[in-house]
Amino acid sequence: MNDVQLVEDELLREDKDGAVYLTLNRPDKFNTLSESLLASLQRELDNIASDPAVRCVVIAATGKGFCAGHDLRQMRAHPDHGYYQSLFRSCSGVMQGLVNLPVPVIARVQGMATAAGCQLVASCDLAIAARSATFGVSGINVGLFCSTPAVALSRNINAKRAFDMLVTADFIDADTALDWGLLSGVADDADLDATVAAKVAKILSKSPAAIRFGKAMFHRQRQMSLAEAYELAGEVMADNMMNADAQEGIDAFLEKRKPTWEQPGH
Amino acid sequence: MNDVQLVEDELLREDKDGAVYLTLNRPDKFNTLSESLLASLQRELDNIASDPAVRCVVIAATGKGFCAGHDLRQMRAHPDHGYYQSLFRSCSGVMQGLVNLPVPVIARVQGMATAAGCQLVASCDLAIAARSATFGVSGINVGLFCSTPAVALSRNINAKRAFDMLVTADFIDADTALDWGLLSGVADDADLDATVAAKVAKILSKSPAAIRFGKAMFHRQRQMSLAEAYELAGEVMADNMMNADAQEGIDAFLEKRKPTWEQPGH
Amino acid sequence: MNDVQLVEDELLREDKDGAVYLTLNRPDKFNTLSESLLASLQRELDNIASDPAVRCVVIAATGKGFCAGHDLRQMRAHPDHGYYQSLFRSCSGVMQGLVNLPVPVIARVQGMATAAGCQLVASCDLAIAARSATFGVSGINVGLFCSTPAVALSRNINAKRAFDMLVTADFIDADTALDWGLLSGVADDADLDATVAAKVAKILSKSPAAIRFGKAMFHRQRQMSLAEAYELAGEVMADNMMNADAQEGIDAFLEKRKPTWEQPGH
Repeated sequence: MNDVQLVEDELLREDKDGAVYLTLNRPDKFNTLSESLLASLQRELDNIASDPAVRCVVIAATGKGFCAGHDLRQMRAHPDHGYYQSLFRSCSGVMQGLVNLPVPVIARVQGMATAAGCQLVASCDLAIAARSATFGVSGINVGLFCSTPAVALSRNINAKRAFDMLVTADFIDADTALDWGLLSGVADDADLDATVAAKVAKILSKSPAAIRFGKAMFHRQRQMSLAEAYELAGEVMADNMMNADAQEGIDAFLEKRKPTWEQPGH
Repeated sequence: MNDVQLVEDELLREDKDGAVYLTLNRPDKFNTLSESLLASLQRELDNIASDPAVRCVVIAATGKGFCAGHDLRQMRAHPDHGYYQSLFRSCSGVMQGLVNLPVPVIARVQGMATAAGCQLVASCDLAIAARSATFGVSGINVGLFCSTPAVALSRNINAKRAFDMLVTADFIDADTALDWGLLSGVADDADLDATVAAKVAKILSKSPAAIRFGKAMFHRQRQMSLAEAYELAGEVMADNMMNADAQEGIDAFLEKRKPTWEQPGH
Repeated sequence: MNDVQLVEDELLREDKDGAVYLTLNRPDKFNTLSESLLASLQRELDNIASDPAVRCVVIAATGKGFCAGHDLRQMRAHPDHGYYQSLFRSCSGVMQGLVNLPVPVIARVQGMATAAGCQLVASCDLAIAARSATFGVSGINVGLFCSTPAVALSRNINAKRAFDMLVTADFIDADTALDWGLLSGVADDADLDATVAAKVAKILSKSPAAIRFGKAMFHRQRQMSLAEAYELAGEVMADNMMNADAQEGIDAFLEKRKPTWEQPGH
């Protein structure tokens, strides 16, 4: 995994009004997460994490499918335990990077999301899919149980449903994924971009500072006991109340006018 | 927060056959959780916790809405970090007090349950709402992410659904809240009181001792590993078996007759 | 609990192509979990755990109902705290034994699954029920809160739904149990065996080694923080990749042919 060449056009980045669109761009490879694509993703997540102007991230993909998981050909070319440890560590790093990013991340899903591709959907804060999209963790079909995808999947959906998907390799459709909680939204295929854009616009209309307070707290408190979670959340909320946006927001509410948020990084 | 004046009629208490109805009574303020109302709630929860005659609690509210969260005007009047820490600590204390109460707590919800009002619903063991009720964590609209409500909400509903509500401030209706697990029941508006009363009556018909064994164990074991949870639950069940009500209940079952439960505090 | 007599025909074992069918066989007692039946179950789980040829387990039951929980008459005959501690410890041992078994376990459910019988369903990795089956944790009706069943139930379904079932003793039907996540599948009564057989056949068609990698990891990682879970899952996946089946499976996939799995224990 040393000296990974960053193939820049494997990952496209577009910035629009504080939203960053990261688009997997290996359509002929079903956007499999090669070493270089994982490295590019990690690099952009690091850049975003330190950029106060970014307020929302969309993970999208070009071509017919969202992401088919790992690059099996590349994996098979390196039959080495240390290589695999390093590969899965870098993939898990990207997935946790999405969770730990200071701003909300939305998956925009078309076609198939398979194995680590399904994990990518599960790892985003929100996920909106085209109604024709499908989701599976089918590594078991090639003798490789989707263990790291199971980590994210089982934190999104019920244990029996997750286990069934993992041992059978059965795919579920978008409406089922929405019903089970893997998705936060489904749109008719033709409306997918508009639906994602509307969600992005809604997030951008809120206080950037307040969104950052919340995102940082949300996933951390989920892993805590109730008492610890309240301890953290109470501190975050007190800090949030001292922030100019909360003061402006509450004043605007009481004065029945529209609030004006501070725009960090501008 | 010192010398808080307890405005007694902000919180009504009615005792009926072992059930306590606590009714938020600031209808002109949408039952917002002012310092004094929080203090009154905490005081009554403390009273109930030490009263062996209480067997069930209902949290209700007067007026058009259940609870609109914190009292924003009061909060804005005290722009002080220590004040906010103290305020959120006392609110989190009430929410955890509901969880830690030795008897079941049912929320009876009409109209809007917003922010800490939605958290109140999430913090009860059971929650029954009128079909026209709505639920939101809309602090983000005033620049204040609903961090403490997120603690309770994310322990009731799926992470993506909770996160979506928190960053968009979108409200969900009662049927959606039931489908997602924030509610345990929905009733037509005209049937709300009868539905809550039927649930209370059913709980009152059970062994008071057994209900207390269970309530104390239920939330504690959720925060434990599987092995620890079984260790606790096994001990509780052995204790429960040695209680007179279990012996009477099983004998009555085997003898095909109605059991007679001990009535503590009487 | 010493010198428990193993009544062999209380638990039937049938081996078929790597699947083991364990069938509770006390139909006249609604398959209640007597001391001896629990001991038989534990013994068979231990045997299966050390047998590399076993690849899947089905828990079934004879007669009209799946399992009515503990044997109340036997419990009442031993009004002794130490006896109950030992009894619940042995029952919890069986339930955790199902979770810790190295291969998937499927519950095949007909009729009523009550109290520890419902816990048995909740403790299996997958559960398929006849549409006419019903599920309840009704110990509260005999003054005995279903504390140990609550451990498994609350790890399958939402907290408010579980608590409601525990304090009311209300039963839910199979379609509700599926909707809530207690079941992974429902079949028309006449199709139950065929549906279970199809699920077993699908699991048997996968790599035995990969299934074992996954089962061992799945439940452990659920109890960990996200970072710890990824640490474990990444190690498991690297080990899985070095296994002959993953190499064969990926090669077969790339060569567009059917893979041939190693058959341990043969």
